[in-house]
Amino acid sequence: MTRRLALVGLGPGDPELLTAQAARVLNEVDYFLVADKTAQHPGTADLIAMREAICDRHVTGEWRIVHVPDPERDRADPADYGAAVRDWHEARAVAFEQALQEHPGDAAILVWGDPALYDSAIRLADRIVERGNVDVAVEVVPGLSSVQLLAARHGLVLNTIGGPITITTGRRLLDDARTGDNLVVMLDGSLTCRRLSDPSAWRIWWGANLGSPDEQLVAGQLDEVADEISTRREEARAARGWVMDTYLLRRASHIVVP
Amino acid sequence: MTRRLALVGLGPGDPELLTAQAARVLNEVDYFLVADKTAQHPGTADLIAMREAICDRHVTGEWRIVHVPDPERDRADPADYGAAVRDWHEARAVAFEQALQEHPGDAAILVWGDPALYDSAIRLADRIVERGNVDVAVEVVPGLSSVQLLAARHGLVLNTIGGPITITTGRRLLDDARTGDNLVVMLDGSLTCRRLSDPSAWRIWWGANLGSPDEQLVAGQLDEVADEISTRREEARAARGWVMDTYLLRRASHIVVP
Ligand SMILES: C[S@@+](CC[C@H](N)C(=O)[O-])C[C@H]1O[C@@H](n2cnc3c(N)ncnc32)[C@H](O)[C@@H]1O
Ligand SMILES: C[S@@+](CC[C@H](N)C(=O)[O-])C[C@H]1O[C@@H](n2cnc3c(N)ncnc32)[C@H](O)[C@@H]1O
Repeated sequence: MTRRLALVGLGPGDPELLTAQAARVLNEVDYFLVADKTAQHPGTADLIAMREAICDRHVTGEWRIVHVPDPERDRADPADYGAAVRDWHEARAVAFEQALQEHPGDAAILVWGDPALYDSAIRLADRIVERGNVDVAVEVVPGLSSVQLLAARHGLVLNTIGGPITITTGRRLLDDARTGDNLVVMLDGSLTCRRLSDPSAWRIWWGANLGSPDEQLVAGQLDEVADEISTRREEARAARGWVMDTYLLRRASHIVVP
Repeated sequence: MTRRLALVGLGPGDPELLTAQAARVLNEVDYFLVADKTAQHPGTADLIAMREAICDRHVTGEWRIVHVPDPERDRADPADYGAAVRDWHEARAVAFEQALQEHPGDAAILVWGDPALYDSAIRLADRIVERGNVDVAVEVVPGLSSVQLLAARHGLVLNTIGGPITITTGRRLLDDARTGDNLVVMLDGSLTCRRLSDPSAWRIWWGANLGSPDEQLVAGQLDEVADEISTRREEARAARGWVMDTYLLRRASHIVVP
C-alpha cells in the first residue's frame, strides 16, 4: 500500500509562521523525519529543538521524530567534487529509505522554511521514489521562507516597482552583482557583500536568526553598516554556535524617493 | 492613540495556506480594508469572495470588510506615465486614509499572496504614515506567495543546485532571459514566453489560479506545451473573466539528469 511522504515547510523558525495546511498534515501523518547533523555540528541540536517547539505547538496529542543521521561528507578529494556530492546525496537517500522501511506508516520530512528554496528534501524524495524500494506518494507542503520574513521585518518590498529580483548565494554574489541591482543573498557563510567593490553604491537590509528570540536586524548604506553587521553576526554565532542570515542588496540608484 | 495597521498576507487563494500569525492578527483587529476594483473590473468580485472565504474560515465570530474603491487610473497621457502613476498612488493613499478616518479602531489590509512580492500595500502604508493625517503603526504579516504554491504543486525546487533565481515580470522577460537561465515570471498578461527566440531550449512549469478550485498546471518543453498553456489560459479566463498565472522557465541545459 502506498504511504504518504509529505515534505512539510515549517517556515523560518517562529512556530506562528506555519500554515494551516502544514499543521493539518503534521497531524495526519504517523511520524516525522529529520536530517540530524548533530554528529558533525553539535550546535545544531538547537535547530532540532526549534522543530520540536513547532510540533508541540501545532500537533494535538503525541508526536514522534525519527532522526536520520546525516552521512559524512567526503571532502577528501576536491578534484572530483561532483562525484563526492552525488555519493553524499545517494547515501542520504539510502539513510532515509532505511528509516522509512524501519518505521511503517505515513511520514513527513520537516523542512526549514520553504522546500522550494535551497533545500534538498524535494530532490531527496525524488531519488527515494526513483530507487523504488519503498512505495511512497510524495506531496509538497509549502512553507514561508526566511526571505519573506526578512522582508516583513524590514517592511520591505523585495522588488523595485516593476523590477526583477535575483535570489542567489554567497558563493555567486560577486558575479551576480555585475548584472543585478536588487539581490537577495542566502547561504553566505562570510558576508561576501563586504567584498563588493563599490559598497557606498549599495543599501543592505540584513537579518539573522529571523523568527527566533535572538533575531538581529540591520539596515543602511552598505559601507556605513557593514561593520555593525559583522559584529552582530559574530555575536549571534558565538551565542549559539551557529548563525543563519540573509540579506537584500539594492543599488542606491534604484531607490526612488517619491 | 496609535492604531494598528496590519498588512496581512493571505497566501495565494486556498484558505488553508494562511499562517497562524495571519489568522491571529485577523482576529485581533476591528475591521479589514480591501482595495475594490470591481467598478473597473467587474470580474474581480470573485477575488473579493475568495478573501471573504478566508475570513470565514479563520476569524471567530463577526468580521467586517471596508471596501475602498480603487481610484480611476488616468491612462490619457502616456507621455507623462511616471506622473500619472504617482497621482494614482496618491489618490489611493488618500482613499485609504479617508477609510481609516471614517472607521475607528485597528485595521488590517488584506493582501493577496505575500506583501513583499509585486504588491503595493507596503508602499501605500508608508505613504499614509508620511502624510501624517492618521496615527497608525504599520506591521507586515508575511504570506505564502503564488510562486511558492507553483513550486509545491509541481514538486519543484526553484533554484538549480547552488544557482540563482530571477523573479521578473512579463514586461521584462525578454530582456532578463538574456542573462538569466532560471526565471520565475509574474504579472504576464500575454504569455510573453512564447516570444522567446529559442523555445526548444527552455522548460516551463506553469500554473494558473493556483489554490482555487479551477487551478491549472502544465509542464514540459516550452515549444511542445506552449499551445496547450495558451488554450488552458484562455479557457480559465473565459470561465471567470480573469486569470492569474505564473511560471518558471529553466534552460534545458541547466537540468541535470543524475
Ligand atoms: C539551506 S538554505 C534553506 C532556506 C530555507 N528553505 C528557506 O526557505 O528559508 C539556508 C539559508 O537560508 C537562510 N535562512 C534560513 N533560516 C533563516 C533564518 N531564520 N534567518 C535568517 N536566514 C535564514 C540563510 O541564508 C541560510 O544560509
Ligand atoms: C500584483 S502580483 C501579486 C503577487 C502576490 N503578492 C504574491 O505573493 O503572489 C499578481 C501576480 O501574481 C501572480 N499570482 C497571484 N496569485 C496567483 C495565483 N493564485 N495563481 C497563479 N498566479 C498568481 C500572477 O503572476 C499575477 O499576475
